[in-house]
Amino acid sequence: MASVPKVIQKLIEAFERLPGIGPKTAQRLTYYLLQAPKEESQALASAATDLKEKTVVCEICFNIAEDVNCWICSDSSRDKTIIAVVEDPLDVLALEKTNFKGLYHVLNGSISPMENIGPEELKIRQILPRIKAGEVKEVILATNPTMEGEATAMYIDRLIAPLGIKVTRIARGLPVGGDLEYADETTLRRSMEGRKEY
Amino acid sequence: MASVPKVIQKLIEAFERLPGIGPKTAQRLTYYLLQAPKEESQALASAATDLKEKTVVCEICFNIAEDVNCWICSDSSRDKTIIAVVEDPLDVLALEKTNFKGLYHVLNGSISPMENIGPEELKIRQILPRIKAGEVKEVILATNPTMEGEATAMYIDRLIAPLGIKVTRIARGLPVGGDLEYADETTLRRSMEGRKEY
Repeated sequence: MASVPKVIQKLIEAFERLPGIGPKTAQRLTYYLLQAPKEESQALASAATDLKEKTVVCEICFNIAEDVNCWICSDSSRDKTIIAVVEDPLDVLALEKTNFKGLYHVLNGSISPMENIGPEELKIRQILPRIKAGEVKEVILATNPTMEGEATAMYIDRLIAPLGIKVTRIARGLPVGGDLEYADETTLRRSMEGRKEY
Repeated sequence: MASVPKVIQKLIEAFERLPGIGPKTAQRLTYYLLQAPKEESQALASAATDLKEKTVVCEICFNIAEDVNCWICSDSSRDKTIIAVVEDPLDVLALEKTNFKGLYHVLNGSISPMENIGPEELKIRQILPRIKAGEVKEVILATNPTMEGEATAMYIDRLIAPLGIKVTRIARGLPVGGDLEYADETTLRRSMEGRKEY
């Protein structure tokens, strides 16, 4: 391809760096913005600038925040006796769509020897003072049902077991709308193990 | 969902406005930028700002340009006797990947009575002075093989017929790697009509 104008090439490249955006999509998005009203690319530009400049990490739960504490930790109506431990801030958004009304603890990843991520790289130990403060009655290990997520959950369970509070793990089983016939073996086994009285 | 920080919400919304980006993807892209180095969101922001501020429309062919003329019109090695008429600047990029070495004429859309787009809304008449200037020997109608693209091609063909130059239409047929069995009727009919001696 000949030399596409540099300003265009730069935006295509910026889009391409985003996860799940290939060269074709990056091109399409750029050319869309070229013909869209100027306000649209400006909105994107200023939002992208503000994103990093106006956000911090919550001092309590390590979720994304605009202030020292995130909007959940600073909400007095939340149930402070229950903490859901998640891997990423996006998991917080996902759980917020359920009727969970407790607090969170965002690890910022999961233990992964393959990627050289040990417990010390994550916000794991930081949950101890929160539990020791006394109000917490249950910790829900809501890390992903992947190898790394399970290892992380197991590690945290052992770490906080001596504190004597209730530690639970989110259920793993067939997704709603799923089909036994097409479920993988591990999921199906988990689903059987996790059965409840009807 | 509770109140996600406004700065995050704004970027999610900016992404959502882009074509083919749904709410989930917009969220994922935003949270990706949150954890990525600051340079990445800055690169996106400045590229999006520059995009509209540093580009204009080429005075000759109506392609995107950084100067009064685009990088193709100002390239003296291009074949000025042949013009490919396309709907959008993205089509220019697509044809640049073929071995086409002529010039372009970008209509900025296609005739679509459904969307109230008539010939006057497009850069159609603007091709006349280019042809009348005398150098052009062939006009390739490279609008999309859609209803609108065909109508546009037909309109342009009639418009420039009196000028007596060669007017061609890109071939419509089975895509390379395609399968007769799965081809739609219209494509197959076009493919038969467009057959060439072997």
